[in-house]
Amino acid sequence: MDQADAIFNGQVKLGVLGGGQLGKMMALAAANWQLPFWVMDTDPSLPAAPYATQFVAGDFRNEADVLAFGEQVDVITIEIEDVHTGALHQLKARGKQVHPDPAALDIIKDKGLQKQLYAQHGLPTSPFALYDDKADIIAAWEAGILTLPFVQKSRTGGYDGRGVFVVHTAADMEQLLEGPSLVEEKVNIVHEVAVIVAQNANGEQQCFDAVEMVFDPIANLVDYLRAPSLLPQSLLDRCETVARQVATAFGTSGLLAVELFVDDHGQVLINEVAPRPHNSGHHTIELYGTSQFEQHIRGVLNLPLLPTRAHQSAVMLNILGEAGYTGDVRYEGIQAVAALPGVHVHLYGKTTTRPNRKMGHATIIADDPAAAMQTAQQVKNLLRCKGATQA
Amino acid sequence: MDQADAIFNGQVKLGVLGGGQLGKMMALAAANWQLPFWVMDTDPSLPAAPYATQFVAGDFRNEADVLAFGEQVDVITIEIEDVHTGALHQLKARGKQVHPDPAALDIIKDKGLQKQLYAQHGLPTSPFALYDDKADIIAAWEAGILTLPFVQKSRTGGYDGRGVFVVHTAADMEQLLEGPSLVEEKVNIVHEVAVIVAQNANGEQQCFDAVEMVFDPIANLVDYLRAPSLLPQSLLDRCETVARQVATAFGTSGLLAVELFVDDHGQVLINEVAPRPHNSGHHTIELYGTSQFEQHIRGVLNLPLLPTRAHQSAVMLNILGEAGYTGDVRYEGIQAVAALPGVHVHLYGKTTTRPNRKMGHATIIADDPAAAMQTAQQVKNLLRCKGATQA
Repeated sequence: MDQADAIFNGQVKLGVLGGGQLGKMMALAAANWQLPFWVMDTDPSLPAAPYATQFVAGDFRNEADVLAFGEQVDVITIEIEDVHTGALHQLKARGKQVHPDPAALDIIKDKGLQKQLYAQHGLPTSPFALYDDKADIIAAWEAGILTLPFVQKSRTGGYDGRGVFVVHTAADMEQLLEGPSLVEEKVNIVHEVAVIVAQNANGEQQCFDAVEMVFDPIANLVDYLRAPSLLPQSLLDRCETVARQVATAFGTSGLLAVELFVDDHGQVLINEVAPRPHNSGHHTIELYGTSQFEQHIRGVLNLPLLPTRAHQSAVMLNILGEAGYTGDVRYEGIQAVAALPGVHVHLYGKTTTRPNRKMGHATIIADDPAAAMQTAQQVKNLLRCKGATQA
Repeated sequence: MDQADAIFNGQVKLGVLGGGQLGKMMALAAANWQLPFWVMDTDPSLPAAPYATQFVAGDFRNEADVLAFGEQVDVITIEIEDVHTGALHQLKARGKQVHPDPAALDIIKDKGLQKQLYAQHGLPTSPFALYDDKADIIAAWEAGILTLPFVQKSRTGGYDGRGVFVVHTAADMEQLLEGPSLVEEKVNIVHEVAVIVAQNANGEQQCFDAVEMVFDPIANLVDYLRAPSLLPQSLLDRCETVARQVATAFGTSGLLAVELFVDDHGQVLINEVAPRPHNSGHHTIELYGTSQFEQHIRGVLNLPLLPTRAHQSAVMLNILGEAGYTGDVRYEGIQAVAALPGVHVHLYGKTTTRPNRKMGHATIIADDPAAAMQTAQQVKNLLRCKGATQA
């Protein structure tokens, strides 16, 4: 029996590090084939736990926990980068299939190594330099090597905007982040685009249509995501080309979500990547025949990748914890949202909220982009995710 | 907090009697909202068990088990009719929400009462008479009241072709089924059509497009299902009208799947109904924004029902246990099927097979019906569900 037959006969255990919403939606994709789907995370109240065929309590940052979990499954993947990659290297050496490859994950977890890889492959990204600490940056600035403004990013540990500092003035220099970091030219970002590329060990590559993340200019947060993007096709084609090149450079199996900037000169620049399902692909559940979650599973199990083609338009809104509230989550207004045709509400089942925590999302599908946007605006006005405790 | 808010805040426990594939696909629909989804059935190896948020071991035909389960949840529904309705009447009397209504379920479980209801409401169905036993049928035939050919159906317990006997000749009379039965005129069936109607307690009604079940003329089994049907629209409109009238007559919440015959005079006749998700609606998972499983949940929880509109065509094939095989299931050929765009394989995770057992299904989605049929034929040729033991 070859691996593909073994998979569909339930003989290949797929293990996922992380039990958040991405693990949950992956579990639901795996459920169509009733795959043995193991999840490890600390807390059985996490979103993926009820839908994993086996939930294992453990810490994905702990070497022993990852090793013990990996030994129980056949193929290992992740829903979060912040895992113990040393353990993944050991599991790979022992013959386990690990996707994304631990070496690629080491590069991705270190924004300095990521930038170096783009430079080595001649891939477009903003000019940068690496520094060991804050003092070195100040010295470089004082020596006139660095000019204001610039962006400082911690090499490791950043997530969702944490670990990024924009230096506009000399006074800002005092608040520079501690530890090893990279400094890059401040890009005049006009658009933010994401392209999700899938690959498998057979060398197949497929990608979803580029999506556009539209920011709330006041809150400086992603307001909504539009798919397919309404940007000029020639620009989107360049985004897709760059994303495919990045995926080829990493050579990983499963998904690689490539976040791109388009600057005020129309240049496409790589921001960063995630080797897993991504917030910018949630709309694929409803918009495409194959979701990002199924495509990731296909990639890591080396099953054929399917082409993706959208027949309609989607807008995706994150359902975020409302500012000023913490504690036990309380959704309001979903009854009215549930009556809107084309609206798909996904609640992750997180028990407690905090401001801007991703608690769920809503995908709005419509025949044309304007109709999708209009309904999305209604959803945004109706839906609230509050908490038991008001600040 | 009203019921809708309570639902989306996880405070309404939905309990389902039956843990087969219909319960599984309902659990996956409920997972998008992380609803507390309880399932009761005898064996935790059944399809729905891994995806229920709580699996309870028990027998849905046993009064005490149904009562105990019902007491633990807030809203009770079914994935199979063959449940202890006496217990459901008691639960309803104690204030639990039970959908479909136990009184309607009593009627549906008895094909004689079903036919009487259609007659009372002037709904089209073939002429019939009820008999207490085999001897009465023979007496009626000998008295010239009954003429050959006719169809005898056991009033209760029939399922998937069991409990139905077609009497062509006098010699067949000896094999008449024992017990109370109904006898109906043999319909010259030209087409079989199914329409799934959804209703909620607010009085909303929505229906999915009529689907056509195409039979294998040799095996006399449903070969595939085509959606939307390619039959003339005027005929489909009549089917939908009848189905909606049937749903109104029953007045149940949740789905009512109405199976219809079209005879050689173009008459639309009600065959039978099922007050739950149905094999004729599996394609709705991929073909519509709202699947039959989500619409059933919306119906039983009295949430708004969504309109349904297909943008493409679907063919649905049941994946049946191959003749001549029993025991541990072995799928063959799914690797090749997994490479076909537009094909969605659903495996139910049943551990053992037997000839013609429903082990999964494949839905083929394409832009036009001919393309869907062509791919469906490929799937049919490639896919095999064998067992460890060959007869």
